[in-house]
This record gives sequence, C-alpha cells and structure tokens, in this order.
Amino acid sequence: MSSQSVTPRSVDYSRWYTDVIQKAELADYAPVRGCMIIRPYGYELWEGVRSGLDRRFKATGHQNAYFPLFIPMSFLQKEAEHVEGFAPELAVVTHGGGKELEEPLVVRPTSETVIGHAYANWIQSYRDLPVLINQWANVVRWELRTRLFLRTMEFLWQEGHTAHATYEEAHEETLRMLDVYADFAINDAAIPVIRGRKSDQERFAGAVYSYSIEAMMGDRRALQAGTSHNLGQNFAKAFDIKYLDRDNELKYCWTTSWGLSTRMVGAVVMAHGDDKGLRLPPVLAPYQVVAVPIYRDDAERSAVMPTVEKVVAELRDAGVRVHVDDRAELTPGFKFNDWEMRGVPLRAEIGPKDVEKGTVALVRRDIDDRKQAKLFAPQAGIAQTVPALLGEIQASLLGQATAFRDAHLRVVDTYDDFKAVIEAGDWALAYYDGSAAVEDQIKADTGGASSRCFPLDQEPGEGACIVTGKKVAERAWFARAY
Amino acid sequence: MSSQSVTPRSVDYSRWYTDVIQKAELADYAPVRGCMIIRPYGYELWEGVRSGLDRRFKATGHQNAYFPLFIPMSFLQKEAEHVEGFAPELAVVTHGGGKELEEPLVVRPTSETVIGHAYANWIQSYRDLPVLINQWANVVRWELRTRLFLRTMEFLWQEGHTAHATYEEAHEETLRMLDVYADFAINDAAIPVIRGRKSDQERFAGAVYSYSIEAMMGDRRALQAGTSHNLGQNFAKAFDIKYLDRDNELKYCWTTSWGLSTRMVGAVVMAHGDDKGLRLPPVLAPYQVVAVPIYRDDAERSAVMPTVEKVVAELRDAGVRVHVDDRAELTPGFKFNDWEMRGVPLRAEIGPKDVEKGTVALVRRDIDDRKQAKLFAPQAGIAQTVPALLGEIQASLLGQATAFRDAHLRVVDTYDDFKAVIEAGDWALAYYDGSAAVEDQIKADTGGASSRCFPLDQEPGEGACIVTGKKVAERAWFARAY
Repeated sequence: MSSQSVTPRSVDYSRWYTDVIQKAELADYAPVRGCMIIRPYGYELWEGVRSGLDRRFKATGHQNAYFPLFIPMSFLQKEAEHVEGFAPELAVVTHGGGKELEEPLVVRPTSETVIGHAYANWIQSYRDLPVLINQWANVVRWELRTRLFLRTMEFLWQEGHTAHATYEEAHEETLRMLDVYADFAINDAAIPVIRGRKSDQERFAGAVYSYSIEAMMGDRRALQAGTSHNLGQNFAKAFDIKYLDRDNELKYCWTTSWGLSTRMVGAVVMAHGDDKGLRLPPVLAPYQVVAVPIYRDDAERSAVMPTVEKVVAELRDAGVRVHVDDRAELTPGFKFNDWEMRGVPLRAEIGPKDVEKGTVALVRRDIDDRKQAKLFAPQAGIAQTVPALLGEIQASLLGQATAFRDAHLRVVDTYDDFKAVIEAGDWALAYYDGSAAVEDQIKADTGGASSRCFPLDQEPGEGACIVTGKKVAERAWFARAY
Repeated sequence: MSSQSVTPRSVDYSRWYTDVIQKAELADYAPVRGCMIIRPYGYELWEGVRSGLDRRFKATGHQNAYFPLFIPMSFLQKEAEHVEGFAPELAVVTHGGGKELEEPLVVRPTSETVIGHAYANWIQSYRDLPVLINQWANVVRWELRTRLFLRTMEFLWQEGHTAHATYEEAHEETLRMLDVYADFAINDAAIPVIRGRKSDQERFAGAVYSYSIEAMMGDRRALQAGTSHNLGQNFAKAFDIKYLDRDNELKYCWTTSWGLSTRMVGAVVMAHGDDKGLRLPPVLAPYQVVAVPIYRDDAERSAVMPTVEKVVAELRDAGVRVHVDDRAELTPGFKFNDWEMRGVPLRAEIGPKDVEKGTVALVRRDIDDRKQAKLFAPQAGIAQTVPALLGEIQASLLGQATAFRDAHLRVVDTYDDFKAVIEAGDWALAYYDGSAAVEDQIKADTGGASSRCFPLDQEPGEGACIVTGKKVAERAWFARAY
C-alpha cells in the first residue's frame, strides 16, 4: 500500500516527479544503477502507449518483427558517424558460456546496423520495396545521469526501420511517422507537441536529417518525445543494401528510422501532473474510473454494493476501464486521496443516498475546484454519461496543456530578448544559422538552453541570426530541456 | 519473394523444418551465431501466441510489469542450485560506457533473482499477497546447439512470478498456470499436450517441483512446450521475501514461476506441417484467408475485382483476417502453392465464373485430397460460411494431431517392450522410480530417450519400475525429445 502524499509539484518539481513515480507505483529503482523496474501500473500506461502507436503503424502499412539483442562490434564500426556517436554509451558482452568471445558483442543501443545487414540479404529487386518494419524492444545506452522513465540505462521502445527506392519516398516516410507521433501525442497522450527538424549537431548519429516532436513539461522544460530520421544512403552504403531497379541497374536504397520510448510515460506524468500527483489522460489511463463504495457499516455496505456492481457492469459493457476499490480497512477519504494521487480521471462514489436517489457522484480529476469537479449523474444512462465525460476530460487536459504551453512560447528577434525569455524559463523562437558555434555560445550564455528544432509549421521568411546576424531562412525553438 | 518448394517432410524432417521456416519467411539466421531474426510473418504468429496467453493471464488475475535485462552476478549466486544450473549458459557484460565494470552483469537467462529482490522490497504484509506478475521479455542462454525457434541463444518469452502466503496457494497457482498453458495449446495452437511433473533431474534449477506440457511433433519427438515451477521457499529464503502474517509473525513467502517462449512457434510448425509446408491453426494464423483473384486479362480483372473487394470487406467486417494476393506478375498456380506452403488455413478463389454464378471457391489447407478440400460457397452469407469453416479447420487440425499422437502413445510394463517402443519412435508410458540412475541407463540403452513427465492424468496405482523392479506409484512418459 502506498503512502498518499507526494512533495507538492509547486514546492520542488524534481522531488515531486520522483515521489509521484514511486508512490503511484509506476516504477522503482533496479539493483543495477541507472536501470528501472516498470511496475504494473506504469507498465499498463506503457501498454496504452504501445497499442495506440501499434495501431497507427499498422494503419500506415508497417509490420512488426524482432531482431537480435546482440550486435557484433564490427557492425557498428561500418558507419563512421554512427560508431562515433554510440561508442561511449555501449554495454559490451565479452564472455559467453564460460568463455571469452573472439569478437565482443554489443548490447543494441539502436538497431540500424543489424537491421541494415538483414535488409541487404532480403532486398533484391524494386519489387521488394518499400520494406516497412517496426520492432518493439529493449535497448541499452550507458547513461551516467539517469532519471526514471526520462533517461535510463535500459529502456523499452519501438524502432521503425524502412527501406525505399527513392529519396522522396524516404523523406515522405520520415515525415509521415513524425506525424504519427504527433497525432498520438496530441490525441492519446493529450500533449501538444511541436514538430520540427533538429539542428546538425543534434542529429542522430548517421542520419542526414533528424526530426522530433518536442513537448513542454510542467516546469516549462522541453522534452524530445519521439524522433524520426532520414538516413539517406548512409546505412545502405555501409551495409550494401541494394536493389535491381526497373532499368536493370543496381541501386542503393534510401532508409529511415524512427523511435519512441518509455520516456513518453515520463512525459505524461510531467505534462499533466499537479500538486496532488498524477493526472492521466483517459485514453491512456489504466483505470479510467475508480468506483468507491461509501458505507459506515455492514448494513450500509449490503445496501450499496449491488448498485456499485450494477453500475460497474454497465460501464464495463460500454468498454470503460473501471476499478472498484472495496478495500475494507481504508476510509473513503484515504481512497479519494490515493486515487487522486494515482491520477484516475474520474471517481464514482456511491453511498446509501445515491442508492436512494438513483444517482452516482462523479468527481473529475482534471478540475481543481472541488465543487466544480463534482456532479451527480443519474444511474440511468450512466453508460452514456461516463464515456462522454471521459471525452471531456481528455479534451480538457489537452486544452490545459496547450494553454500552458502557449503562454510560455515567445517569438524573439534580438539576443537580449532571447536571453531574457530563456532566463524567465520560457521557450524562444528565433532566427538561427544552425551552426554548432552559435548553439554552444547560447548554451554558455543561458546556462544550458539548447536548440529544440526548426519547427515545420513556420512561414517561409528571412531574418538575422540572433547571434551572428547572418541572414537565414528559418527560426528555431530554444529552451532548457530534459 | 520466396521460392515455393520445400524439402518434403516425408523425405527429411529436419531439412523440411529449416526450409519451411525460411521459405515461409517466419525467421532468418542472425549474424551472431545461435541468434534469430523473427520476420513479420513469424512475429505475427508469435503475437497470436502472446495475445492468447495474455488474455488468459489477465483473466486469472495477473498483471504485466517489466524487470531489468541486467542482473548483478552476485544475485545468481544467492540460490545454490540456480547458479549451478545457469552458470554455464550465461552471457556476461564486463564493460559499460568504455570502462570495465566493478561487478560483471549477467544478461538475464530468467528473472527469479532480480524479481525476488524486488518482491522483498514490495511485500510487507499478508495484505500485499498474493503478488501475481508476468513479464514479456527477451532472455539469453548460451546454447551451443541451436535450431530456429526451438532453441536459440536469445529468445522471447513470458515469465510469470508469483508470491503467496502458503504452500497450498503456491501449489494451486503452479497447476493453474500449467492448465492455462494446456488450454492455450489445445484450443489456440490445436496441439494436444500432456500435463505432468518433471523428474528430479529435469527440474528447473531452484524449483521444488517443475511441471510441463509435452507435445508430440510430426516426427514423433517430444517437445516441452511450457513449464510451471513450484519454487517452495527457496528463492524467498535466498532473497529474504517475507511478510508479516495476521498472527504478527514474519514468514517467508512461497513463490512460483512459469514460462512459455517463441519455441511455441516451432511447435506449431512441427505439429501441423506437411510435405507442402506449414498448416496454421486459424486461431493463430496471421492470415486466416487468402483471396486470390483469377483472371487472364485486364477485362477479366475488371470484372472480378469488385466481387473480390466486396467479399473481402464482408469477411473483414466479420473479424476474419484476410489477405488479398493481387500480385500482377504471378500466376494463380504459383500463388496457390505459395500460400499453401505458408499454411494459410483457407484459400478463396474468385474468377469470372464465380462472379457469374455468385460463388466463391474455398479450398481448405487441412485436407490433403484436392477434391475434398474444395467447395463452392455462395457469396451471399459468406460472412457466416467462412468463420464456421475456420472453426471446422481448427477442430480438424486438433483432431488430426490428437489421432496422430494417440496412435503413437504406448503403455508398457517390461523393459524389453519399453526399448522396442522407443526404438520404433513412439512414446512409452512406464512405471519409473524417478531416479537419475534409471534415466541415465534408459538414455544409454535407447540412444537418447528421456523422461518427459509423470502425467497428472493417471489413476493411482502401483507397479514395478521397468528398470529396477522397485515398487513405485507412478508411471512416466519417455520419448526422444527436442
């Protein structure tokens, strides 16, 4: 049983996050430093992410497969930028079956190399293209500074890997999957995100262009919540992925990759939570409704439970995920706080008076004001009322997150304004020449703000880079980030 | 595109298996020896296994979670039998982030230890029990002799881990999950299995009792297709998993574990396949129906396709998984062979005459005789005809596998009969004293037959151990096995 109170978010955001993850039993620390145990409540949230994405991947023509955990060290070395980027983060198996291995094996940090090797075998002709495959897997990156869900040594994710006949098709795929991520984030996770292109120095190691969705957390920091990469022919050349084209010429394929991880669970916690704990969007919430029977003695309990069971059965038939909290040893007040902390979108209280009046007291988690949050719904028609309310709550969380974000997005034209905006903790959209030198200077001048992305949704324009004054065509978002 | 013909099963069972796995594109070899790539068609079959089991686990009160891939070496050493059993099979990470680790990390071969450690933290009181958790994960065992799906260095599986207040509850859980496996094998995979207790020397390393479901493959060899272990208090004592009981005393928990892996995909291939390739049970088949439009020219194609689309749409609305093979460059004959090799349970052919007559030609994969396999169904009512036929095919495959198995199960009372039965390739049920010495002698005398299990479904009795003549109470199944 979890203790109820978490450090209020307004007091210490970082401690609040750690508290709420552990007290809501989303996750726990593992014995190996930097690793995480995903507990059932957190895993069910991840299953919601997984099914929302998987459905969208299948609807866009992708199939799932599974590639091996172990990659020969030599594979990583075939793509120069790739090995340079990932070498410092590798976990290496040197012994197997009691013997030292001839070639060390890398525990996959990502699978472009081993999948590229397979694609080279599978793809012969233009008829075999496109190849549209995704895998759900664990990956390992040796991170020194870890934080539950946001950055862990091992994490769960999906990685899509596709091969195409032309650059244009690969480019379209890269943006299509970025849109899939944005659609999922907005409609399922209720998190408004900005789609954009990463700067060169923030590119995936081995990509030509990397794109991301960027989300604003409750402390206004940015979180990169999903990435999609146009890999050009870099991996095709490194792994000899060729096809015989209609014109009877052998050509290199164009490939993409895209990934979204358990980090998304951290995003949901940070984007929606409040002082009392989690606030989960109904689409992803493991329990959409918690039903709490209210009684003082066995007689009242006997009077109340048949109604509770009837209401719950009707809701379940309507496809609503309901949990009944009938723990005998706890007071209703304790239960209310407990489930508020755990972020269940809607609480259904049923007591003797509700039985008498034919009502259910419904309390919304998305509204802070106690009176406004509560309504009495007739038991008749509850299977229509509750799904409609869940829809409202979903929209309300997205609305709140969007209003909060928009209040902290600022367009700036001078470096002084830029620094003031970052200093105030907001995001700044500014003309930027895309260079590493400018980004490094900004990081130094602002105590760590980084370029998030060149947003896709911007008017074509021209302006002066806020640092160098050079004429450039695009603005980029800058912010402090996780 | 896959070549169509496989080595006939009747010619060379072992080559047939490897051929069919690769040509049906279920799996491929990975660059690291002993590892496997599960291709989309094979992965979809695994997703069918996964969802069939997951549904049953949830219906019996279990929740999913995720525990770390890496386990400190010292954890394995806490349970003496466990480390002795698994030490020779471990993959060991010695370097991370460019540095040698102070303590080597084991890539999990199974997770009793790391989960036991977590349970010790989570369980305080009798109120926290039972803990009923399952995880879907990859595990690594350094196998020297591997075979696609049946035995690979890395494999996918689920491992359930539960903790209980009493021995009786743990015992019940162990048998309940064995029954879940048997129910899945029989009803979803159409494989009749024998539930039983393993001999002491075949026990899981660290278990008090191990149980398995044993299946007969098409070459009559046995395959252990799922296991369920009563771990007693062995891991509770090694990891200090205790609870405060109602009587205010601290007591050790009783734990269980149970697992079923991608080996089940190999079982489906081997139990049902024939000379032409796979025969997939409709419940698990990625495609239950393949629709092949029949036409000789564009005019016929235009006449046929609207009917194909209409029939397919009706089937999909009825929840049938249909694939339309409209590859222009291939003949219908090629497609028929291709999908027969891939084991699709039902083929729907629609040509100009079918359009005219309002029929669909349906061809069952479970019936070998070409005439008997084919029937003409009216297009009207196809959404009822096809699901009913799929049900018949599912039952027919189970019936065929059961008849085949039962024809090769033999009860014997003398060692001479026993050896003759094993020599003939069948399974022998015989009184056996359970000792390692007898099992070793049987292995030597028969060229490798091993005890499969003491079947749960046997009448209480008494007889003479076929080797020692000692009076014993139970018979065990012996067979050559994978």
